[in-house]
Amino acid sequence: MRYPLVKLRLPDWIEEFLSDPDRDYPTEEDRMRLVIELSWLNVEHGTGGPFGAGIFDLSTNRLLSPGVNLVTTANLSTAHAEMVAIMVAQQIVGHFDLGGSGRPPYELVASTEPCAQCFGATPWSGIRRLVCGARDEDARSIGFDEGPKMPDWPAALEERGISVVRDVCREEAAAVLQHYAASGGMIYNARQGD
Amino acid sequence: MRYPLVKLRLPDWIEEFLSDPDRDYPTEEDRMRLVIELSWLNVEHGTGGPFGAGIFDLSTNRLLSPGVNLVTTANLSTAHAEMVAIMVAQQIVGHFDLGGSGRPPYELVASTEPCAQCFGATPWSGIRRLVCGARDEDARSIGFDEGPKMPDWPAALEERGISVVRDVCREEAAAVLQHYAASGGMIYNARQGD
Repeated sequence: MRYPLVKLRLPDWIEEFLSDPDRDYPTEEDRMRLVIELSWLNVEHGTGGPFGAGIFDLSTNRLLSPGVNLVTTANLSTAHAEMVAIMVAQQIVGHFDLGGSGRPPYELVASTEPCAQCFGATPWSGIRRLVCGARDEDARSIGFDEGPKMPDWPAALEERGISVVRDVCREEAAAVLQHYAASGGMIYNARQGD
Repeated sequence: MRYPLVKLRLPDWIEEFLSDPDRDYPTEEDRMRLVIELSWLNVEHGTGGPFGAGIFDLSTNRLLSPGVNLVTTANLSTAHAEMVAIMVAQQIVGHFDLGGSGRPPYELVASTEPCAQCFGATPWSGIRRLVCGARDEDARSIGFDEGPKMPDWPAALEERGISVVRDVCREEAAAVLQHYAASGGMIYNARQGD
């Protein structure tokens, strides 16, 4: 085959870390702490940037799919934690619309507010609720570019029936970003060339 | 493995259609006509929505990677033509930044202007130039949702050093959208559920 297959594979440590499929995460803070831990472990294992995400089934409070940033390890600028969680979730349910008829409400939890790409991908995913930890200015403060986002992006999602909750465990989430920067983590915005 | 591998594979017909790797596409119109043909063939083969894209190397005018919409066949809401072309290109060059040091200038050609997701993904990809065929209102006129885009999205890309050219072969590109709608093609926006 002339053109390569594009493969996105979660790091091996995730399977071990998430070894109990029956564990539930009853509160927003429980769910956020899990994705913050994913962001931390992603840095510790050197498998990508300091961002974690997860899709949760709000009818059971269980995790459907985890996501971590895989930009530098998968060589894909699109492989942000939210995108990875969305794509893995859609493969699990076998459909491109997590909001389709007969499905439980799904929530996307992101350790940092979505960049312009992940914001734009959110309405297509079918999720009903978005919960964010660190603010995009927390990401920008360590040099990450969040892209061209409209000023009132939460309102644009709310208008489409997607609830947005911000600042859940913000300080804990931002601490992972600070740790990443302080330990010399790669700030991998594109266009490093001239 | 508990979590599935996410795989994005170009349809088999693309390999046959693009059988000459040395063919060059000297003008914008040449490059646009190729991606419009991809959008048309994607509908004819039933491999996805009526959208095509390609990444071209502007130092040789050759195609680096094609992309077609694979949302319904890959079960991935993210698998828009532009995203597929970007991801395949990054796998070919082996890097997440098509704009990295020492690389030729790459151009993304899209048969329809990018939706909110693909707009947000564009700065991360490393491309230097975006060429569009049909306008987003042409897509909306057949029922596709382009998402929450800032009104002057081309200016936001230009500010980041990405040139934007619009309306190249717009009528030919829009005709494929009209044909898709007239033949009963699926308008697959998310949140078809309640």
